[in-house]
Amino acid sequence: MRALVLSDREVRVDEVPDPQPQAGEALVKVLMAGVCNTDLELVRGYMGFNGVLGHEFVGIVEQANNPHLVGKRVVGEINCVCNTCHYCRMEMPNHCLDRSVLGILKRNGAFADYLTLPEENLHLAPASARDDVAVFTEPTAAAFRIVEQVKLTDNDRVVVLGDGKLGQLCAQVVHLHTKNLVCVGKHPWKLQLLSNLGIKTALADEPVMRGADVVVEATGSHLGFERALELVRPEGTIVLKTTVTHPTALDLSIPVINEVTILGSRCGPFRPALEALSLGNVGVRPLVTDTFTLNDADKALQRAAEPDAMKVLIQM
Amino acid sequence: MRALVLSDREVRVDEVPDPQPQAGEALVKVLMAGVCNTDLELVRGYMGFNGVLGHEFVGIVEQANNPHLVGKRVVGEINCVCNTCHYCRMEMPNHCLDRSVLGILKRNGAFADYLTLPEENLHLAPASARDDVAVFTEPTAAAFRIVEQVKLTDNDRVVVLGDGKLGQLCAQVVHLHTKNLVCVGKHPWKLQLLSNLGIKTALADEPVMRGADVVVEATGSHLGFERALELVRPEGTIVLKTTVTHPTALDLSIPVINEVTILGSRCGPFRPALEALSLGNVGVRPLVTDTFTLNDADKALQRAAEPDAMKVLIQM
Repeated sequence: MRALVLSDREVRVDEVPDPQPQAGEALVKVLMAGVCNTDLELVRGYMGFNGVLGHEFVGIVEQANNPHLVGKRVVGEINCVCNTCHYCRMEMPNHCLDRSVLGILKRNGAFADYLTLPEENLHLAPASARDDVAVFTEPTAAAFRIVEQVKLTDNDRVVVLGDGKLGQLCAQVVHLHTKNLVCVGKHPWKLQLLSNLGIKTALADEPVMRGADVVVEATGSHLGFERALELVRPEGTIVLKTTVTHPTALDLSIPVINEVTILGSRCGPFRPALEALSLGNVGVRPLVTDTFTLNDADKALQRAAEPDAMKVLIQM
Repeated sequence: MRALVLSDREVRVDEVPDPQPQAGEALVKVLMAGVCNTDLELVRGYMGFNGVLGHEFVGIVEQANNPHLVGKRVVGEINCVCNTCHYCRMEMPNHCLDRSVLGILKRNGAFADYLTLPEENLHLAPASARDDVAVFTEPTAAAFRIVEQVKLTDNDRVVVLGDGKLGQLCAQVVHLHTKNLVCVGKHPWKLQLLSNLGIKTALADEPVMRGADVVVEATGSHLGFERALELVRPEGTIVLKTTVTHPTALDLSIPVINEVTILGSRCGPFRPALEALSLGNVGVRPLVTDTFTLNDADKALQRAAEPDAMKVLIQM
């Protein structure tokens, strides 16, 4: 089959053997996949990953032990877990000590004709969500992780830092819980997409009222955290969504004095994400900048790295 | 009166005018004061403070509007607040926007014959707590802040990093809530003080079991945070007690991937601290390294900066 393979910080589309489903796994024919900033970080050396990239997808199950799955259109959770380790037993499977992660850690990913995942990771894609909507389930779930970790009320004042594809999803999900929200970004045309949804926005060099109850840091830059510290109120919460390996020089006395809670936030729940996408409560189609074929998947990654790009999709 | 005055990173004992209590304030004759690492940081430029140092004290009220206070032996909360700003009204007076802080911010401190504080800041010192015990109320309260912020159960496994005077108090307070605790330090004789109380200890270069539910960072060093990240479990909590202005280079992807909660922690509640000190549930007298007179308060600070020192007291 064809696949976009990362090897020693080089990516290229290659012919590789079809994946063989292991016990409990399904074979999924990928229909469409999405490029995430994490893919770009992986190419820069993040996680030391080599293999097939890609972890956002929608596909059709071709083989499965569960006959009801075969032929179904699915999306999939990316953490493949042991179900027996300490953290699995503590109901924190996303932190399984023995996990593999689709296209990120010890498991080939979705920029390919086929992938394998444990059947327990798969969710049926609702018919009302087209491929170019369902493919957003994984990053939308990551945005829903915020409201799983922080109980937002409609009184809470929230700032989302970052108007990129993850910032946009975070802002839309937060907006379902509080209207007292402003998204801060650098790109007027990206912020306009949020304004179209009734979400308040500000450019990065415009003043933003300090003292936010919650600041979501989704800039994708190591500089976002310092700005978050400026904007959050004492005893407020900063949710960190950005994963960059660039070390950040921080004066930790500021969060100590202000008793700030800083919360790392990674993968999230698929069910509310699928519901929001199928109902249209989170709108994603305006976020799609370009669609490439799998044969041009390397170009898709290049395009996704350009500052005027948002979500770049790969059609198999 | 005599006072230890910090001026442009120089300290010296000087004659200064007696402080004049403002409306609502009491005049307190200081009996004894304690040197905190924050005092040493202030001398290095932290907070840009100039004035009389010192914020840990026990004293006798000489003047007050409340006649019941006069003549009483008291300890005092250090944040002097407006009671009208947004954060005061949100019941977060320690984060008052208009606050002054005894010996730290816009208010002369306790290394002096007299200090003034709002009467509402004063607590009666129990007769069962001698001066050299009651003087520990403020740092013990800071340790109790941990269990106000994190609801510890006796199942929780906790690591306290730091065997200095704050680390010792943190370990003792945590030990009241869970016995599943280890304090990690660099000084065998300091760790021995905790062993004497039945608290498990480890030297910094000894292996410590990872996966702690809670790690309290009280090393006083900018290096402690990285160690805390190594030891805390996924979705665990790091409580930051250290205030150093030294910028720390951090790879923030680690707390994001592990979804760690990082909690800044500063001043704490006086009532449980006074109770623990007066009952002896927190033992502090073994922590006293030296006692100097106010005339030698500059030498007290020098002594407190030496690695073999723990708490240094100043007797007026």
